[in-house]
Amino acid sequence: MNEQETQAVQAANARFYEAFQSLDLERMSAVWAPDAHATVVHPGWRLIAGRDAVMESWKGIFDNATMMHFLITGVNVFVEGPLAWALCTENITTVLDGQVSEGRFQATNIYTLRDGQWLMVHHHGSPVV
Amino acid sequence: MNEQETQAVQAANARFYEAFQSLDLERMSAVWAPDAHATVVHPGWRLIAGRDAVMESWKGIFDNATMMHFLITGVNVFVEGPLAWALCTENITTVLDGQVSEGRFQATNIYTLRDGQWLMVHHHGSPVV
Repeated sequence: MNEQETQAVQAANARFYEAFQSLDLERMSAVWAPDAHATVVHPGWRLIAGRDAVMESWKGIFDNATMMHFLITGVNVFVEGPLAWALCTENITTVLDGQVSEGRFQATNIYTLRDGQWLMVHHHGSPVV
Repeated sequence: MNEQETQAVQAANARFYEAFQSLDLERMSAVWAPDAHATVVHPGWRLIAGRDAVMESWKGIFDNATMMHFLITGVNVFVEGPLAWALCTENITTVLDGQVSEGRFQATNIYTLRDGQWLMVHHHGSPVV
């Protein structure tokens, strides 16, 4: 595996979590491949498919959260040609409706290479119990 | 997306669940790419990495289950070059330690093409609540 590619995917994965943490829908939208069939599984949810539905789901999460802090650990990156996936643990502190909670989630994030940029096509997060 | 490739990935995904349901470790082993870095996230678990650890995790699940029936719904398949991923809902009836339970899980399965065969490199299953 090419070290430079691996670092580029790690950077894309970090950018995803910065966008998530920012609660900024435009930043989140920029992380996703504009021309791909976007899909997401939020913890405990069913699959959401299609870019509009995926962005609507982020809007719902962002609208309800007033603060979200991510500590990302155990990042594993795999690259095969124009496709890559990152596996990592999300340690999240959230303020939702005035309540502080901490959670740990395991994520599978899939990225595709578009004009030299790694962009997200799928995010799957699930609770670690 | 090539229809023939999509069908081949769907068949690989069906083979994975047949192996899972069979509780046969050799059949499960044959589903996974022998030369890839295998990873798995079982529902509620942390990431398990490396072929030996992944197979050990299946052994633990199979040893404890006496019957497992899968109904797979909502299958979405994506292919990009030598890599593919299948998203689906697992509707599972399990007999574990004499207790019957039903569960619904959302899965992300990643496959790689090796000598014309789609083989698994990553499975992520999470509970739908």
